[in-house]
Amino acid sequence: MRSPDQHRERIERFLAGLELSDELGRLDEVVRYALAGGGKRIRPVLCLATTEAAGGDPDQALGAAAAIELVHSFSLVHDDLPALDDDEQRRGRPTVHVRYGEAQAILAGDALLNEAFALALGYDGPHVGRELALATSGMIGGQYLDINGSRQDRMELNRLKTARLFEASVGCGLWIVGIPVAEQEDWREFGAEFGVLYQVVDDLLDDDGLVKERGRPATLELAASTEARAREKLDAIDADTSVLAGLIGELAARVQQSSV
Amino acid sequence: MRSPDQHRERIERFLAGLELSDELGRLDEVVRYALAGGGKRIRPVLCLATTEAAGGDPDQALGAAAAIELVHSFSLVHDDLPALDDDEQRRGRPTVHVRYGEAQAILAGDALLNEAFALALGYDGPHVGRELALATSGMIGGQYLDINGSRQDRMELNRLKTARLFEASVGCGLWIVGIPVAEQEDWREFGAEFGVLYQVVDDLLDDDGLVKERGRPATLELAASTEARAREKLDAIDADTSVLAGLIGELAARVQQSSV
Repeated sequence: MRSPDQHRERIERFLAGLELSDELGRLDEVVRYALAGGGKRIRPVLCLATTEAAGGDPDQALGAAAAIELVHSFSLVHDDLPALDDDEQRRGRPTVHVRYGEAQAILAGDALLNEAFALALGYDGPHVGRELALATSGMIGGQYLDINGSRQDRMELNRLKTARLFEASVGCGLWIVGIPVAEQEDWREFGAEFGVLYQVVDDLLDDDGLVKERGRPATLELAASTEARAREKLDAIDADTSVLAGLIGELAARVQQSSV
Repeated sequence: MRSPDQHRERIERFLAGLELSDELGRLDEVVRYALAGGGKRIRPVLCLATTEAAGGDPDQALGAAAAIELVHSFSLVHDDLPALDDDEQRRGRPTVHVRYGEAQAILAGDALLNEAFALALGYDGPHVGRELALATSGMIGGQYLDINGSRQDRMELNRLKTARLFEASVGCGLWIVGIPVAEQEDWREFGAEFGVLYQVVDDLLDDDGLVKERGRPATLELAASTEARAREKLDAIDADTSVLAGLIGELAARVQQSSV
């Protein structure tokens, strides 16, 4: 089985070589700037590792894994815009609209979403595309709640804005291997819990979000209980899920780091 | 065979009853405002009429026809934004960002594109979705050329920004009927010419675009030659294309109107 780092290397290479539509012209550069943000590629790694754990060839999932990263990137580019979160920096680099202007950022975000579906449509059957569409509508709905301040509960927001795409990362792997829907539940719940954990850890590292609302001790407790639920879901699956357990371990290690 | 008005009535009813993802919450209202702009629904009508002309049941194409209208609507909402064309009015109503704010306009445009793919993924096989993705990348590339002023030729821009989605409207109908790709060429060229004609007529009615660049007489000549090519393509098809010829006639009648 490949390690998370091996999956990461594969997806980086796949993204670097990804052919975008010719007609995007020089917008291609903006799209690639958005994609090359130096993120940890956690969603595509989750997709590839799920595919292998479920008994498939992770290379067959590279297109879906890349599509998920494109959807993630689309959401960052649009959410960073002045009319939304108005963020000027992301991972130490100027955000897309700061670097290229708002018009290009809007179009590059559109192109990222569209190219994600083009990749998904490379698969037989509609399942990969439907996973993307479902996750994306959740993310858009979550962002809408967020900017309108009509959000009741940050955890509900996290489930829409973050956990949905993690669940889709797992779901795409399952469809590619051909796991029937009746056997998907524990996998999917693992994906969603993993996504919630990712966001909780992110808030702990940034001293933001849940930490501001509930305090650090309560957020640490939430991280621990979410980690436990994610591990429980994995344990219920009759497959070698050791690499996925390793991904949970990577996240949990970051919690320790945040507490130093 | 149904008339253009009968197709129009069906698509209006379908769009009015269209179920959007629950999770969009109150963004649903913004999406519906964008969709209910009182346009002529020319692209979906073209899709439905092509389906029937090619020997299929137009009701089976309603999802694809609606998806095309959603893509069109997505492009209008984003192109109207202050960072792009900065339009405050569209068909006598405030544009989406004027009515609801920029953030909601960006998210509503994203939701329209995503819901379009969700509709396309309701069909067996990837063809309807691929038509949308191809047309959308052309439209985004065209809009990019437009705002960057790097456009060499307005006709090339029209082919990307307008004609692509008209060709896709025809293409979706052909796939739904099951017309093999080897027999699609004349149909597709008709769709692209029809799209070019649509834009030329639009410029004649608005005294804009081509009319400003080339003058009215040259643009009228262009309309006549494009109309002739569109009719030629239809004549080459071995099917009852009378309703499609009627759609060309509707556009041509608007040219007369513009010359009064």
